[in-house]
Amino acid sequence: MTVKVAVAGASGYAGGEALRLLLAHPEVEIGAVTAASSAGTPLGQHQPHLAPLAGRILLETSAQTLGGHDVVFLALPHGHSAEIAAQLGPEVLVVDLGADHRLTDAADWQRWYGGDHAGAWPYGLPELPGARQRLAGTKRIAVPGCFPTGGTLALAPALAAGLVRPEVVIAAVTGTSGAGKSLKPHLLGSEVMGSASAYGVGGAHRHTPEFAQNLSAVAGGPVSVSFTPVLAPMPRGILTTASAPLAGTTDAAAVRAVYEKAYADEPFVQVLPEGAWPVTSATLGSNNVQLQVAVDADAGRLVVVAAIDNLTKGTAGGAIQSMNIALGLPETTGLPTVGVAP
Amino acid sequence: MTVKVAVAGASGYAGGEALRLLLAHPEVEIGAVTAASSAGTPLGQHQPHLAPLAGRILLETSAQTLGGHDVVFLALPHGHSAEIAAQLGPEVLVVDLGADHRLTDAADWQRWYGGDHAGAWPYGLPELPGARQRLAGTKRIAVPGCFPTGGTLALAPALAAGLVRPEVVIAAVTGTSGAGKSLKPHLLGSEVMGSASAYGVGGAHRHTPEFAQNLSAVAGGPVSVSFTPVLAPMPRGILTTASAPLAGTTDAAAVRAVYEKAYADEPFVQVLPEGAWPVTSATLGSNNVQLQVAVDADAGRLVVVAAIDNLTKGTAGGAIQSMNIALGLPETTGLPTVGVAP
Amino acid sequence: MTVKVAVAGASGYAGGEALRLLLAHPEVEIGAVTAASSAGTPLGQHQPHLAPLAGRILLETSAQTLGGHDVVFLALPHGHSAEIAAQLGPEVLVVDLGADHRLTDAADWQRWYGGDHAGAWPYGLPELPGARQRLAGTKRIAVPGCFPTGGTLALAPALAAGLVRPEVVIAAVTGTSGAGKSLKPHLLGSEVMGSASAYGVGGAHRHTPEFAQNLSAVAGGPVSVSFTPVLAPMPRGILTTASAPLAGTTDAAAVRAVYEKAYADEPFVQVLPEGAWPVTSATLGSNNVQLQVAVDADAGRLVVVAAIDNLTKGTAGGAIQSMNIALGLPETTGLPTVGVAP
Amino acid sequence: MTVKVAVAGASGYAGGEALRLLLAHPEVEIGAVTAASSAGTPLGQHQPHLAPLAGRILLETSAQTLGGHDVVFLALPHGHSAEIAAQLGPEVLVVDLGADHRLTDAADWQRWYGGDHAGAWPYGLPELPGARQRLAGTKRIAVPGCFPTGGTLALAPALAAGLVRPEVVIAAVTGTSGAGKSLKPHLLGSEVMGSASAYGVGGAHRHTPEFAQNLSAVAGGPVSVSFTPVLAPMPRGILTTASAPLAGTTDAAAVRAVYEKAYADEPFVQVLPEGAWPVTSATLGSNNVQLQVAVDADAGRLVVVAAIDNLTKGTAGGAIQSMNIALGLPETTGLPTVGVAP
Repeated sequence: MTVKVAVAGASGYAGGEALRLLLAHPEVEIGAVTAASSAGTPLGQHQPHLAPLAGRILLETSAQTLGGHDVVFLALPHGHSAEIAAQLGPEVLVVDLGADHRLTDAADWQRWYGGDHAGAWPYGLPELPGARQRLAGTKRIAVPGCFPTGGTLALAPALAAGLVRPEVVIAAVTGTSGAGKSLKPHLLGSEVMGSASAYGVGGAHRHTPEFAQNLSAVAGGPVSVSFTPVLAPMPRGILTTASAPLAGTTDAAAVRAVYEKAYADEPFVQVLPEGAWPVTSATLGSNNVQLQVAVDADAGRLVVVAAIDNLTKGTAGGAIQSMNIALGLPETTGLPTVGVAP
Repeated sequence: MTVKVAVAGASGYAGGEALRLLLAHPEVEIGAVTAASSAGTPLGQHQPHLAPLAGRILLETSAQTLGGHDVVFLALPHGHSAEIAAQLGPEVLVVDLGADHRLTDAADWQRWYGGDHAGAWPYGLPELPGARQRLAGTKRIAVPGCFPTGGTLALAPALAAGLVRPEVVIAAVTGTSGAGKSLKPHLLGSEVMGSASAYGVGGAHRHTPEFAQNLSAVAGGPVSVSFTPVLAPMPRGILTTASAPLAGTTDAAAVRAVYEKAYADEPFVQVLPEGAWPVTSATLGSNNVQLQVAVDADAGRLVVVAAIDNLTKGTAGGAIQSMNIALGLPETTGLPTVGVAP
Repeated sequence: MTVKVAVAGASGYAGGEALRLLLAHPEVEIGAVTAASSAGTPLGQHQPHLAPLAGRILLETSAQTLGGHDVVFLALPHGHSAEIAAQLGPEVLVVDLGADHRLTDAADWQRWYGGDHAGAWPYGLPELPGARQRLAGTKRIAVPGCFPTGGTLALAPALAAGLVRPEVVIAAVTGTSGAGKSLKPHLLGSEVMGSASAYGVGGAHRHTPEFAQNLSAVAGGPVSVSFTPVLAPMPRGILTTASAPLAGTTDAAAVRAVYEKAYADEPFVQVLPEGAWPVTSATLGSNNVQLQVAVDADAGRLVVVAAIDNLTKGTAGGAIQSMNIALGLPETTGLPTVGVAP
Repeated sequence: MTVKVAVAGASGYAGGEALRLLLAHPEVEIGAVTAASSAGTPLGQHQPHLAPLAGRILLETSAQTLGGHDVVFLALPHGHSAEIAAQLGPEVLVVDLGADHRLTDAADWQRWYGGDHAGAWPYGLPELPGARQRLAGTKRIAVPGCFPTGGTLALAPALAAGLVRPEVVIAAVTGTSGAGKSLKPHLLGSEVMGSASAYGVGGAHRHTPEFAQNLSAVAGGPVSVSFTPVLAPMPRGILTTASAPLAGTTDAAAVRAVYEKAYADEPFVQVLPEGAWPVTSATLGSNNVQLQVAVDADAGRLVVVAAIDNLTKGTAGGAIQSMNIALGLPETTGLPTVGVAP
């Protein structure tokens, strides 16, 4: 099978990562690469690491340029995907790396993003219960947010098993690429290096309802989520620290067994050996999630730490994993399980 | 007044920071600078930034070399301060930057550090209720741990005012200097840069009982503390994110007013204007604490974010602040309130 | 003496550093702080590290707001200083941190910067021969570029002593703040971290003629300069590596003696002990220059390495050093000789 | 063809990178992974990014454990390869990532490394004239040093074409992994981050004679080399800036044409479009070399800038490229030409 794939938003970080991974995918031929203000310039000017595509000229993002492909990746700011998807026809697999189709609740969408809700698409986190069935054969995929990818996988087994009460606290440290290639002063290298900062505090980050949606589904009831993102001086990576009050047992081995069983067959999730703690660099450039769990008997809480690459498993790698399922390919096709370190 | 000050552990990060600040202190004359394995070598070889002291030869750390000073700073690994302090005589002001005299509970000490408890000294966090009275005229000061400095100041006003329930969750992102100049693989630049990692998870970090001790005293009853430290790729700085369940009001303005009142007269604590969030680089090299509060009504939690420089306010700056009080000097003498940024 | 100082361009990096240092200057009272597009907003929004000035409102940069001060610092893009200076009157000490008045040759100015040449002002590098006499009592100071500060001090003693032929090669690694707070994609943290890049290669950087001007004056004849700047992932600091063909002796001790003698009385220049090599972090936040020299007998070249903080000695610290001389104050007043490390 | 490959020194950075790349090589089966002091521990403890090999136990490095493989990679400190290679038998392809067999001149070896010279092996820089013929079918490969890889490729075309005089000046900025996983204070994250430093200045770095050997061979006569390495705060990457006096033409287009022609058929070398300058992050994790050339007519010098990943093209990637040639495989087999950025 050779699948022809177009990438919209190819000058940005999510689009660039999609292209990096698609270049290594044995069943993919890369078609149109499109952009907005950078249309007409060579891709190499924006993504010099994509050497084999350096001479490709960026086209305007439109239904026309994106037409005629088997798969279209949309790496666009939120609010732009629905209209384009509608024009692409139901036979095209549209993979939305943006936020437009993640939330099932229209009121949530309006509160957090504003504007009309475009509707929800099958949610591209294959490790969730039932997700693979929903993704198989689908022509529309909503790629999860980067924070919800790490945090959901960190807490899902405990909530599903009833190990914790549905009141979770998540603090996640992210690299700067999660904010995109935005020309904002606080994202300048001079500001970012040597410094950590919080933002979207107190439930103000748009990924909060997505956490709640995922975790409530797993728990079978409402889960309250306190989420604090922290910006750290690194280009990539998310280290999620998540905790919740233990519901009963404080037996660390029992808790650990729940996690090991939950992820035993997952090709991209590694529950680390006892004593080893996740480091984001170990997942850099890979589609892996590395996890560790601890029981804090004094505080009566379960604590889970998870490392991912926000651009790979957290965005474009997760997208390709779901694409593989949708197309009926082996789920791991073309996806790295080896990080780039040090 | 000219105070003659010796610094033990002058080749390390805490000792170096003490010297950096003492060099700018108008009432201080720097006396002996001592070390262990580096004794006999010039200070400039270990601390090239301390240019005015570059030629000073490091002496052996001993009661003899430290004798004859008005003040002695001990920046030593835990377990080494008590014996030396005992030999220095009660007329010498001994400032322990290590952990030996922070915990009041001997059982806590034995559980977390092991060995005999050396006893508690007046705790050098002047912003705590009653602390200035206990520090005035004292000849022994226990300098707080870097994490408890940020986290205690983040949560104390809310606990004192009964705004939250005594079940706090703290995740703090720290620069690498907090781990000292230790030759361990995970502290190498190649490992640290571009990566975040958690450690001491699940209540395993030694600062956990110190948090509990401080916060329980403020709250007037036991406070459970879930603490997760995260190592980030920066040399200095701690960004603390702390949260607790709201006890009653979710009125953000009322919560904010409690914090503004609590710190209105504090020379080193700034409650930032609404909409501004702490960044560690803004406190770099200064003795400042920058704070912001938020009410997460959905999750029913108060969230506080605090930035400090772990070596300045978190260690050597806080030590000098307490020294000033103990000596009867104006508390702010010689302490920077301006950070070095970008 | 209390000198009232205004700072134009206070929202940028050079202006911010001037304010950081002026806050610690015992003879200075800070007057107007002005900006362009940020006028009307509080300084704390742009420079949160300048805590004591956080509430100051930025005024529009104009002759009116800058009037009535004893000293005016202009931290403006090139091309903006001359007009404002003309309106400030000859009794005001104007310190231009920009490039407008550095070059003496009008043709050089037009070639490298374009537009009309505003004329040269006394050049604020006090360590150059005759500079202190030219700066004493002056009312106009041209602050050197950051690269020429390090590179000129690295090579001047050798050229003055005829140790090398007048064909120098300079490669200098700079932190990102040298590029200012410019919203350009290549300055984003995501692009900068983990990466080094060259720019202005092949003599294309505007500091090239300034190097040539300085070094030719010292050498007493034309000096050709090959200059390559490299952007490194750090906010501050310049590490200059400079070399030139040895003219005669390859006696390392003799070469070293020339440097030690040249800088023996300089308060801010340290020729490091043999075997020690400059690191930029040792100069961070200080007005120091740390130097080391080597003779490469095989290649027949002198190699000099110099570390400075580009914003301090390389910009605002050097500016205050020259201001002190112009005002008749002790040259070192208010200037740090201790770096902030690690 | 399936080739069984052992890696000695698997706990270090060079060995880890070899394993990362070999995991993706379609013709390779990974055999023994060996170490010295870490023998007996799981690889995942040292290289958590190599997830598929996390459970592999490190064996002792010895002729016994390394025996029975088709290819053996030696990533050992210098001085250790010759003895082991002798025991492996002539039918085994031994790829030495260390320095033992790079220099052809025994006197050079003794001067720079000390001890007995083990003799030179075919030099693994396929882009050099005649190199591919020497590597085809060989059973012994000396992998070049990381600095000489970048610097040789930067200057070889100009020297071969007689564009420059044989007096070259090279300053190269390297990431910290080039120093290996050594527990030295100056390599700690706290020291490295936010700082640049020079080392091995004045011809003192061991890669100097290797540069001279390579460049003299290309130039057909002795080339003098002034080399200054600079340590920058990044884990990976080398940015080489190299210059030499122009011999005749200053026609930039002509110079450029020489480089484009020289590398037209090279799969891993990209001469960037005019106006684009190399950034190391664009080559991160890939086997690429990205180059740009400039003519500085004022200074009469050619300036070349080259970016590589020191661990990939500069060490393990270059090694596999040469291995492919030696084994008769397509040269690019298993080697990434796409970088990981941002």
